[in-house]
Amino acid sequence: MMKKAVVLYSGGLDSTTCLAIAKEQGFTPYALSFNYGQRHAVELEKAREYAPLIGAANHLVIDIDMRLVGGSALTADIEVPKDAAQDHGIPITYVPARNTIFLSFALGWAEVLGAGNIFIGVNALDYSGYPDCRPEFIRAFQTLANLATKAGVEGQDYRIQAPLIDLTKGEIIRRGLDLGVDYRLTHSCYDPTPAGLSCGHCDSCRLRLKGFAEINQEDPLTYAA
Amino acid sequence: MMKKAVVLYSGGLDSTTCLAIAKEQGFTPYALSFNYGQRHAVELEKAREYAPLIGAANHLVIDIDMRLVGGSALTADIEVPKDAAQDHGIPITYVPARNTIFLSFALGWAEVLGAGNIFIGVNALDYSGYPDCRPEFIRAFQTLANLATKAGVEGQDYRIQAPLIDLTKGEIIRRGLDLGVDYRLTHSCYDPTPAGLSCGHCDSCRLRLKGFAEINQEDPLTYAA
Repeated sequence: MMKKAVVLYSGGLDSTTCLAIAKEQGFTPYALSFNYGQRHAVELEKAREYAPLIGAANHLVIDIDMRLVGGSALTADIEVPKDAAQDHGIPITYVPARNTIFLSFALGWAEVLGAGNIFIGVNALDYSGYPDCRPEFIRAFQTLANLATKAGVEGQDYRIQAPLIDLTKGEIIRRGLDLGVDYRLTHSCYDPTPAGLSCGHCDSCRLRLKGFAEINQEDPLTYAA
Repeated sequence: MMKKAVVLYSGGLDSTTCLAIAKEQGFTPYALSFNYGQRHAVELEKAREYAPLIGAANHLVIDIDMRLVGGSALTADIEVPKDAAQDHGIPITYVPARNTIFLSFALGWAEVLGAGNIFIGVNALDYSGYPDCRPEFIRAFQTLANLATKAGVEGQDYRIQAPLIDLTKGEIIRRGLDLGVDYRLTHSCYDPTPAGLSCGHCDSCRLRLKGFAEINQEDPLTYAA
């Protein structure tokens, strides 16, 4: 019997690569997404469309009530930064305790499924800005997971896997291409056109394009003119 | 200026006592409840009614999408055990990762409020059954909290306070009475009558009544005949 893994899945480049890595390790991936009032709701539509195409055994979208955490550009009515990389400090797209909340739900689902592994696609590019993307955070959550659950107490050894954590965007893409990931089935843009085309100018698009350029590959997505 | 604390608050005896302890320590309490599809929805109505009466500066009820965690008597269509104490093993009212999820939201709100303390009313009676009520779980979450947040990274020292953790039900009630808690403004029953009266027979009612008996006090609640 195949082992199950829960994969935090946004429909984006990183989490799609992460899901491919889970499959490579022999896991049946259960994809988990969140609807937390993000402005880029097209992301969720794309995730629903792509999840079965990339091999998720199941795809669950959990509604998260994020009223308590205002002040983020991804949920509130604040303009998304354009062509202005935020190299210093914590970006305004930070949502307090977001990955803690996401991993908590993933842990609940993992326990119900009998899955011992949870994959999360955080990487080095994030953790200068987001404290909940750092290796020490991931380790602390793994410790917690084994104390928090009936399964953990009864001998399940939970592992929180963050296989992209040391990789640059280019290295992530190379890894994915080696595994046969079709990057047309990923979505990154924070501010797509009404037709769903990526803008090519938001931080997320720029990081993605830079990643492809870094390894001399062409991004297969179509961008708005 | 008064320091703020987030208090996980169900409207029950334990969390109400916990809120009184937070006030005694000089904190302004911000009460946080969850709507997770519990069958005893009257609990939430009571919590909304009581929160301002017991001195909460604000009361937030967060909707939690618990579809992923089926199989619990509190959310699914399983009969609530009556007059049959579950002394062994983990009770069927266990919801996977529940306290992890609750504390994650509390942490998000604490960061937004600038609160450094989170109070949770778990106690010794729970932790034989619920792994996420044990001291080692609370400590692990505190470690996580300080790694997970912008505030933690920038020097906020989060404390997860579980002041009831060593107390019996009787000791909790005595502590509350000493602090002036009015236990008419608490609700415990898992299976109240349509009029909102406590049944007196479910595990939660029986524990409560045993607690009052333990210290030779009378429970001020009115019970169904």
